[in-house]
Amino acid sequence: MLLIKIGGGKQINIDFICKDIKSIVDSGEKIILVHGASTRRDEIAKELNVPTKTITSPSGVESVYTDEKAIDVFLMVYAGLVNKRTVAKLQQYGVNAVGLSGIDGKLWQGKRKRAIYSQIGGKTKLITDSMTGKVESINSGLIHLLLNNNYVPVLCPPAISEENEIINTDNDWATSVMVGALGIEKMVVLFEAPGMLKIFGDESSLIKRIDKNNLDDYLVYAEGRMKKKLLGAKEAFRQKLKTMYWSDGRVMNPIINALKGTGTIIT
Amino acid sequence: MLLIKIGGGKQINIDFICKDIKSIVDSGEKIILVHGASTRRDEIAKELNVPTKTITSPSGVESVYTDEKAIDVFLMVYAGLVNKRTVAKLQQYGVNAVGLSGIDGKLWQGKRKRAIYSQIGGKTKLITDSMTGKVESINSGLIHLLLNNNYVPVLCPPAISEENEIINTDNDWATSVMVGALGIEKMVVLFEAPGMLKIFGDESSLIKRIDKNNLDDYLVYAEGRMKKKLLGAKEAFRQKLKTMYWSDGRVMNPIINALKGTGTIIT
Repeated sequence: MLLIKIGGGKQINIDFICKDIKSIVDSGEKIILVHGASTRRDEIAKELNVPTKTITSPSGVESVYTDEKAIDVFLMVYAGLVNKRTVAKLQQYGVNAVGLSGIDGKLWQGKRKRAIYSQIGGKTKLITDSMTGKVESINSGLIHLLLNNNYVPVLCPPAISEENEIINTDNDWATSVMVGALGIEKMVVLFEAPGMLKIFGDESSLIKRIDKNNLDDYLVYAEGRMKKKLLGAKEAFRQKLKTMYWSDGRVMNPIINALKGTGTIIT
Repeated sequence: MLLIKIGGGKQINIDFICKDIKSIVDSGEKIILVHGASTRRDEIAKELNVPTKTITSPSGVESVYTDEKAIDVFLMVYAGLVNKRTVAKLQQYGVNAVGLSGIDGKLWQGKRKRAIYSQIGGKTKLITDSMTGKVESINSGLIHLLLNNNYVPVLCPPAISEENEIINTDNDWATSVMVGALGIEKMVVLFEAPGMLKIFGDESSLIKRIDKNNLDDYLVYAEGRMKKKLLGAKEAFRQKLKTMYWSDGRVMNPIINALKGTGTIIT
């Protein structure tokens, strides 16, 4: 079983991805696809006059500030626009995809963080209306049900809390919990870079191999969202993942190339 | 098996509906829920500066003019916002719901109408960029898969064409095709009126019973969307439906009351 996570960047080539998924599914391998939609979300949020706000935790990790209005935009763009456009695209390539959010069948269940701290300038502020949380459990029965009937699940946030509230959640963390719940050994992460870079923006500084036990050492090279990817990766290996492939989602055969080792391999 | 269709009006009380669904599911009956989202769609379309346009066919039936931009709004509001808010609400009431659009697993497959005619003033205009179509077949396997595993499917348009394009489709017609494909005998339709009214807006003019063979006679009383409901009902009975209940989605126990006959019963 192969878990593929694609970022929400504009340059990600969904046609190339769908083509690879088709040939991998035809070879008999089961695939689960998890997608982001951050760029489109930011665009639509702006058009709807509720622009995306980000906050920084005291430990320096950036995340999106999500109140109920932001959840509405989130549902529209992730579970609606991008999820269904991705499903239709897979159908065009002959892959029988079914799109679900973390809310459906309580697929991604988490705990809402009722109070979070945000670093603003030199001060720490307490936020209490945040609809965010961390995924803790997976409805693996529903995933197996789809896989066993030859559907490719196409998944996205938001998740659902224990009190059945809709919560925004970190995709990298959620996929790591899926790794544990489903016993996944291989995971491909596609984004708008050839892999993990030593120097931000310099594609020639690609790091080819990372030892899973030394992930912390790479936090110094990680800008913005990359920090979350490293933390997600650490959790995925704690959940018994064997190999993680970080690779380029903009090029032809992005998944097949990733598995061949053209990007960063964490093992 | 009970098919419930709820309109997209603002006054529809989703809490009352979810409460009834919970008690019916607990009694052992299988439920499929189909929802609209027209009011929210029109609001969001306006906010996004792509207001909903309607066209009138030469035979006088109104429908939404849907190009690719309108499909984006459609996906956002139907498959995203309203579908997932409904699923989360059902989860709050203890119903394990799974939300799907007609695209997922090719649940609702139809034929795209490549050319449609629109009546504008006294003239008939040909429209060729319309992304609309009529549902012709259902992936009943996917519905049974969910029902047999105790999930309540929460379904909405759009549908998918034979060429895997996303197409807007008439909900009333799509539910009628589901009736045939799944062998459904009972269907409840909830909207913002106590049932079919003889005089538009006059709730005391409720028609209590309609003979399924005389549905055409009622077209004279039908304003706007009601025409489509009558045409959908005709098709549902052609597909071997036994009883259709049209009732009020704004009041307590809307489904239980509908089944008791407080609205219009077509049989």
